[in-house]
Amino acid sequence: MDDFASVNDYLYEHIPITRHMGVSVIDYDGESVALAAPLSPNLNHRQTAFGGSIASLGILAGWTLLHLHFKERPPVPRLVIQHSETDFRAAVTSDFEAVCRKPAPAQWRRFMQVLERRGRARIRLNADIIASGASVGRAGGDYVALVTG
Amino acid sequence: MDDFASVNDYLYEHIPITRHMGVSVIDYDGESVALAAPLSPNLNHRQTAFGGSIASLGILAGWTLLHLHFKERPPVPRLVIQHSETDFRAAVTSDFEAVCRKPAPAQWRRFMQVLERRGRARIRLNADIIASGASVGRAGGDYVALVTG
Repeated sequence: MDDFASVNDYLYEHIPITRHMGVSVIDYDGESVALAAPLSPNLNHRQTAFGGSIASLGILAGWTLLHLHFKERPPVPRLVIQHSETDFRAAVTSDFEAVCRKPAPAQWRRFMQVLERRGRARIRLNADIIASGASVGRAGGDYVALVTG
Repeated sequence: MDDFASVNDYLYEHIPITRHMGVSVIDYDGESVALAAPLSPNLNHRQTAFGGSIASLGILAGWTLLHLHFKERPPVPRLVIQHSETDFRAAVTSDFEAVCRKPAPAQWRRFMQVLERRGRARIRLNADIIASGASVGRAGGDYVALVTG
């Protein structure tokens, strides 16, 4: 399993805006991943977290879960996001996290089977947005994995 | 009407991540607003635009349209985003724009009437995501305006 620092390095090197957002991978256990971002670089005009930064952290959480999963079980497919949506349920006045869990086992198994059979499969991943221990939103994304080459 | 530079200054000062994204307000005519972002600071690991940056530019386009509208017709309400969604229809391999137009006149009128009557109203705004002259996605947001004080 990757240590968190190396995943963070990967994000910072390949998705440079994550460096300015101060994104950090704080947990991964094979079933879920947690990404954190400090409030300060992600502020908006109301001194709360900018919606775009929250949406970005949600997108990154889903992507990171898939990325880490496949790094442990190559080949690593190309991962493309097709659709994302974010519900902003409360103003975010502190550092915040996006926690993305693998979906129900049957759904995950089907995703892996279709990917193996067709070289391409889609999965919906959801992430909870957490600030100061409370749920402040939810992000969802439809990701497509493509095995190429 | 604000000149674009002053709106840009506002964004950079109050939403600092927009500075790192290189966001610029390139057009506003009272009916629509166009925001642009260069590819380079918004790259992802596949050398295309990061989905989070695209979603962010869409959110900012809707917000900027409302902000500029109300700056010309005070009082300026608080603007809060409740929900956002983005469809990514093609990989973005160049600088990109988000163009947000006011909705149909009847819908806009109703938004303004409800806001005046109740001090709070919600509106759906959509933005086209454009790269190299082609539509590469669509962003939608539900914004709430609240007149306070």
